[in-house]
Amino acid sequence: MVARIPRRTALLRTAFLLCLVFPEHGLVQAQGPDTARYNPVIRALLSRGMRDLQAENLLRSLVAAAPHRLSGSPGAAKAVLWGAAALVDQGCEHVRQETVMVPHWVRGSTESAVVVGRRPYPLAVCALGGSVGTPPAGITAGVVEVHSFDELRALGPAAKGKIVFFNRPMDPAKVNTFEAYGGAVDQRGRGAVEASRHGGVAALVRSVTTKLDRVPHTGAMGYQDTIPKIPAAAVSTLDADTLSAMLKRTPHLRVTLRMGCRILPDVPSANVMGEIVGSEKPNDVIVVSGHLDCWDEGQGAVDDGAGCAQAIEALRLLQAIGVHPKKTIRAVLFMNEENGDRGGKGYAVDARRLQEHHLGAIESDMGGFAPRGFSVDADSLATLRSYRWRPLFAQLQADEWSTGYSGTDITPLVRTGVPGFGLIVEGQSYFDYHHSANDVLSAVHPRELELGAIAEALLAYLLSEDE
Amino acid sequence: MVARIPRRTALLRTAFLLCLVFPEHGLVQAQGPDTARYNPVIRALLSRGMRDLQAENLLRSLVAAAPHRLSGSPGAAKAVLWGAAALVDQGCEHVRQETVMVPHWVRGSTESAVVVGRRPYPLAVCALGGSVGTPPAGITAGVVEVHSFDELRALGPAAKGKIVFFNRPMDPAKVNTFEAYGGAVDQRGRGAVEASRHGGVAALVRSVTTKLDRVPHTGAMGYQDTIPKIPAAAVSTLDADTLSAMLKRTPHLRVTLRMGCRILPDVPSANVMGEIVGSEKPNDVIVVSGHLDCWDEGQGAVDDGAGCAQAIEALRLLQAIGVHPKKTIRAVLFMNEENGDRGGKGYAVDARRLQEHHLGAIESDMGGFAPRGFSVDADSLATLRSYRWRPLFAQLQADEWSTGYSGTDITPLVRTGVPGFGLIVEGQSYFDYHHSANDVLSAVHPRELELGAIAEALLAYLLSEDE
Repeated sequence: MVARIPRRTALLRTAFLLCLVFPEHGLVQAQGPDTARYNPVIRALLSRGMRDLQAENLLRSLVAAAPHRLSGSPGAAKAVLWGAAALVDQGCEHVRQETVMVPHWVRGSTESAVVVGRRPYPLAVCALGGSVGTPPAGITAGVVEVHSFDELRALGPAAKGKIVFFNRPMDPAKVNTFEAYGGAVDQRGRGAVEASRHGGVAALVRSVTTKLDRVPHTGAMGYQDTIPKIPAAAVSTLDADTLSAMLKRTPHLRVTLRMGCRILPDVPSANVMGEIVGSEKPNDVIVVSGHLDCWDEGQGAVDDGAGCAQAIEALRLLQAIGVHPKKTIRAVLFMNEENGDRGGKGYAVDARRLQEHHLGAIESDMGGFAPRGFSVDADSLATLRSYRWRPLFAQLQADEWSTGYSGTDITPLVRTGVPGFGLIVEGQSYFDYHHSANDVLSAVHPRELELGAIAEALLAYLLSEDE
Repeated sequence: MVARIPRRTALLRTAFLLCLVFPEHGLVQAQGPDTARYNPVIRALLSRGMRDLQAENLLRSLVAAAPHRLSGSPGAAKAVLWGAAALVDQGCEHVRQETVMVPHWVRGSTESAVVVGRRPYPLAVCALGGSVGTPPAGITAGVVEVHSFDELRALGPAAKGKIVFFNRPMDPAKVNTFEAYGGAVDQRGRGAVEASRHGGVAALVRSVTTKLDRVPHTGAMGYQDTIPKIPAAAVSTLDADTLSAMLKRTPHLRVTLRMGCRILPDVPSANVMGEIVGSEKPNDVIVVSGHLDCWDEGQGAVDDGAGCAQAIEALRLLQAIGVHPKKTIRAVLFMNEENGDRGGKGYAVDARRLQEHHLGAIESDMGGFAPRGFSVDADSLATLRSYRWRPLFAQLQADEWSTGYSGTDITPLVRTGVPGFGLIVEGQSYFDYHHSANDVLSAVHPRELELGAIAEALLAYLLSEDE
């Protein structure tokens, strides 16, 4: 996922302005939630959830059934079936798959980059998702290192015929790693376009991670129709440092890049969903979600098997503790978050077509680490209404709410006016795993994962009971 | 460490009462800290700290030099030398060792528990720290399982001649794992005394951890002079479950426990300290601390190599960014937190003898995970004064302050009226590692560890500059 998470200042300003404009409005001095009503629910969720730790079992089952789940792949198809079966297993109703057409990019078996010389130095690389491949013999060229598109522009003709090496790290001084990611990921997303615009023949991009190791981190990149498509690969952070040092000693070194990846025609896939039907207003819907697809380098346990397991577990928990939500609470396992957001876009279109009334959409796509709160993306009054509930979440150590982006998959729905809620977690290690072979089951802690599921279950229930 | 961490309610009540009693006192409506003055310091700490990530290097160096650091052991002596060298390396002044006499318990090489039978079942056990050993041939006896001292008492004579098996787990539904620990650790601390009081011949205690695995977790236990000393061992959680199931099938099963541990006479060891001498009031002291000693089963990276590395790093950072604290900031690496607190007690006595004026004591002993705030143990007005600073810590995502226990080593100092500050961290995984072979370097995340060091450096600096 990609995120921008502003802090609380803007909301406080809004609250202040609303006080001035609507002094009769009780919201701003809200008395807080009905703790006598909701505390037994919280206790039941904790007692059941933290004893069963079922979210981790769901996640283990998913990564065993479909460790590779890139959109359009056989693994993604297995994941769709797994999702439907898991929702049925947990007693959800109306379990269904809603078809979406998804991009189909395949990595291929050839993937290497070697610094040419008497003692060739192999760099740890992987193709960026969506990249074109190289000719079978590869591309051999000199390398220019840059740290920004401005620096590339300033090079003028020096980039012509070269492999452009984008080597700006994530800013380690940013405490919010998602902000740091946002400050570096332009190189991955637009590097090939900008390199090609200046005559480059390929783009090599420093992995967008705070971890120093020899594992390359892939991720989505794009092209512009008016600019020649050139191949783009991620290089591990340690090899980026090595290549940079080599370039200082040997500015004219050459690298051979070979990639067998290619883009195939779109194929059908699906969002998977199931629900607890609302006892009073079944056509009012609250979504709890994650995304099923993941990059092909790891198991996608962190990104975003965790979110899928939590969505299913949230519905299981609500049923297990015996509450009967007034409105429909639906788990949605989106397809194609990573390279197209076709699932999220399709869902929003379907929701409009079906004339369903969505009261809120919750997404967990920050990795299943210990929850700290929610990022609320909604109209100001809706935001303030939801903020009444914060004290309840203190019992989950998840009451650090803020406003801003809530999740890629639910953003199309949020754009239609539905309040979005992104689960915020302790994110110092998220990018160690993100889009890489490091992203495996052991990166997720059973208690932390379950606490996130409980936070989502509670928020969904509050949205459902809210008058 | 052991902790009780109450929530914010008591403090809010105090603030309210202070408002009533001292309406003229500006503290309660405090305007917040001088952000213009302190923001450059925070930025510099983050920039330097998160780039260098030196806390992890210090921790790596410690566990390489002295992986086993139980009080009185050769490893603990190496750790003392390491600490002094590290403080000198980082440019600290007045680096010194202050002698304390410490308990000297040795585990010995024999340590086993086997369920007797045609197919003997070996249980994963380790002696609890401070336990007497068994005779060389071991103790073979039947087993009674209990979950509380009340249940043991109710058994009456049934415990006589038996190994008493305390099998109450940590309550998984408690979100605060330290609270859950507090609710189970009585079995470890007093199990041998209570078992012996009822005629038991040994105590077998379920490991105090939320993790289900075959790794036993040791920790301190005690005896009473008037009650016969019997051996006590921890059994891994999975083996506790297995033994419990076996007892249901075969109530009269017998276990042979063999332990070669023994208690030797006290030996000298030392607290290690070094400081940045205050530019205006060198006799006013702020302590930043962790403890050097650890249990012998793992490397003590989490408990509490992390806290030692952070204390040294906090002082390094303050020097590296070029601030000159008005008062003395002292790193203290305490000895013997785990089984006697001789270092903490000795330091408090020395502080009084030396007529030093301590303005605050900070301890990190919750494992170097992502910081969330501080637990303040101080007089109400001192607590409220320190709470003014919370907004500054929002930039470190560490502004969830609360009141209560601050740390074992600094508690003797806190009892003399010095405000104590315990670094609170994201603690879901802490007890996975605690006092066991799981406690190794890889359990600590470089960025999370460094953020804790930065939070401590900032708090120490604020205490130093406070008028």
